[in-house]
Amino acid sequence: MKFRKVEGGVTAAKSFLAAGVAAGLKKNEKKDMALIYSQLPAAAAGMFTKNRFQAAPVLVSREHLADGRAQAIIVNSGNANACTGEAGIKDARRMAELTGELLQLQPQDVLVASTGVIGQYLPMVKVESGIRAAVEQLQADGGLQAAEAIMTTDTTVKSAAYQVEIGGQTVTVGGIAKGSGMIHPNMATMLAFITTDCAIAPPLLQQALKQTVDRSYNLITVDGDTSTNDMVVVLANGAAGNQLISEENDDYRRFLLALQRVNTELSQKIVRDGEGATKFLEVTVQHAATVEDARILARGILTSNLVKTAFFGEDANWGRIVMAMGQTEVEFYPERVDIFLGDLQVTQNGQGLPLAEERAKAILARQDIQITVDLHMGEAEATAWGADLSYDYVKINASYRS
Amino acid sequence: MKFRKVEGGVTAAKSFLAAGVAAGLKKNEKKDMALIYSQLPAAAAGMFTKNRFQAAPVLVSREHLADGRAQAIIVNSGNANACTGEAGIKDARRMAELTGELLQLQPQDVLVASTGVIGQYLPMVKVESGIRAAVEQLQADGGLQAAEAIMTTDTTVKSAAYQVEIGGQTVTVGGIAKGSGMIHPNMATMLAFITTDCAIAPPLLQQALKQTVDRSYNLITVDGDTSTNDMVVVLANGAAGNQLISEENDDYRRFLLALQRVNTELSQKIVRDGEGATKFLEVTVQHAATVEDARILARGILTSNLVKTAFFGEDANWGRIVMAMGQTEVEFYPERVDIFLGDLQVTQNGQGLPLAEERAKAILARQDIQITVDLHMGEAEATAWGADLSYDYVKINASYRS
Repeated sequence: MKFRKVEGGVTAAKSFLAAGVAAGLKKNEKKDMALIYSQLPAAAAGMFTKNRFQAAPVLVSREHLADGRAQAIIVNSGNANACTGEAGIKDARRMAELTGELLQLQPQDVLVASTGVIGQYLPMVKVESGIRAAVEQLQADGGLQAAEAIMTTDTTVKSAAYQVEIGGQTVTVGGIAKGSGMIHPNMATMLAFITTDCAIAPPLLQQALKQTVDRSYNLITVDGDTSTNDMVVVLANGAAGNQLISEENDDYRRFLLALQRVNTELSQKIVRDGEGATKFLEVTVQHAATVEDARILARGILTSNLVKTAFFGEDANWGRIVMAMGQTEVEFYPERVDIFLGDLQVTQNGQGLPLAEERAKAILARQDIQITVDLHMGEAEATAWGADLSYDYVKINASYRS
Repeated sequence: MKFRKVEGGVTAAKSFLAAGVAAGLKKNEKKDMALIYSQLPAAAAGMFTKNRFQAAPVLVSREHLADGRAQAIIVNSGNANACTGEAGIKDARRMAELTGELLQLQPQDVLVASTGVIGQYLPMVKVESGIRAAVEQLQADGGLQAAEAIMTTDTTVKSAAYQVEIGGQTVTVGGIAKGSGMIHPNMATMLAFITTDCAIAPPLLQQALKQTVDRSYNLITVDGDTSTNDMVVVLANGAAGNQLISEENDDYRRFLLALQRVNTELSQKIVRDGEGATKFLEVTVQHAATVEDARILARGILTSNLVKTAFFGEDANWGRIVMAMGQTEVEFYPERVDIFLGDLQVTQNGQGLPLAEERAKAILARQDIQITVDLHMGEAEATAWGADLSYDYVKINASYRS
């Protein structure tokens, strides 16, 4: 199957407009409000944080997604509208209401997302001006500006889009994401917004979203912390003109693969921009009893502070990988475990091999490092991605709020 | 009940000898082997790491504790003898065998512990010389030397001892511990060795150990990582002359409280010496549905990198406390949660209060900080202890092996 990489992010697909504006929520006149709008009614699906404290926009967007339809997403950065009680819910509802009013949509067709500091009320006068400006500035190439407007501690814009042929029509799937700290998604991610002109029924859109999120955002970790505001949302407006996908046929599988590409690329971009990250770590766990076991182990390795600091220090301390695996709840045989750094085997049957220090040093000096763990148990496999833990991570997070 | 704090650590109790020697396992001629010896047969109990990778000395000591009796503990630092397969087991057995031979004990009456780098074989010629030297240097005031010899990245010696009257006799409970990184014990700790001259039957000794470990070592965390070598062991030789404790009577409760004091003090010393720690954080979760819930939440808060870096930065970012609670599996009502930093309330009913920045600043500038979380659900409560996450934590762990 051929995929064509294209530009544009959330405005790569047909009949989507976007905008990013500065409403004064962030300092230095940086963009802090984004609007994504489908000119046609769209099927919609979402996945949300499993954190027990759910931010007001998460609660409101869940509610608005209940009918599987939405046509706009209004987002602010600089303030998470989390732990803000009834007043916060009211503010989130007002964001949907005003956006809907200006775009002539029902409030229920507008999704709301927020990211930033927890526990402060939104400055609604600024937010309302921002919504008005964003509606005025909606444009067919506004994807990049929207991607900028959702950033917080991010240092790079995260955008991806692919085209694939489905039923003789060119279908585009594009997305933007933000996230650089508090990254350890559980059934959702930091903010990610996907748009597609594919014609697909809401239940299959939700299914495709879940399948691809489990293999992308749910397999990354930066710091082991799960945000109160995580959300990934997809809008599908059917403008590509393909026959509506309403069952798990070949068209569905083609769409699924395109969606997977976008989500994988965006999630890896989040890891590469992880707070203070100097290394991109890819952990593959092979021959596990189940995919779930492989995922837990791969993420467990990438969540350990001791593993992360060892990679920051370019130290071939594989004992910490072993320790991190052993403290998960997964059952495996320690005496069968082989571990490889790049193509260099460092343990066999759970025991250390004499270390080729020069080769290990060369592998660890790379920016991208592959770690492979072979359990010699079954046929399942999973790959997860993570970052190291550096001085800069501590620096960024010791002074975030101020 | 009166407790008298005394000096001496593991040699504070009657009829215990100890030694610490330099066998060349560590650089710079630092002490790296410790021996603790009871001149009388002793009841013994232990708790061990739940990490799936269990180091050779853990496997051997478990086996030797099966009969509830032991009379000596031989320990080395500088090498964990973990992930060393059959050869490692053989080395651990040899340590027990030689120690037993020199002390005229059965190998089964000798416990073995190791701490240090994972995945390297013990240099047994050095270890055997170390054992011989340690036996020769056993002395009635050797507790401090033994405490020094078990240190790795520790910067302070960790020792505690208390006396209490039991049945008209003075009973002493003393201990030493090591641990500064890879600290997130699960049913055990880093290395801790407790000695007492109390006369107590093995089943009650085991029960007292579990009860006190659950409220001490199992409630501390430095970096969320659980070692392959964690072990806490207690020897009770009956030299105090009290009536043998063989049921849960008043004498048992007095002993339990003394043991709790020693274990609490040692575990807090481990946290204070946490790698790179600049703050000592005490989290109390009140009015939880169950003690287990309270423990999980308290430890969850202290395990979050984002919470830890915020305290390092003296930033009153209580939103991260909320996030860390919400990502545990505990069920609670976010809208009821009150949070206090010291005596300053920062959230009420899950929402932020206007922050008294000057007061918050003064509280966060302290070295010891109390955090109190009130769930307003039930009557259960737990307190846990942890450290912040600093530049030095990263520095220490980026170059540990080299």
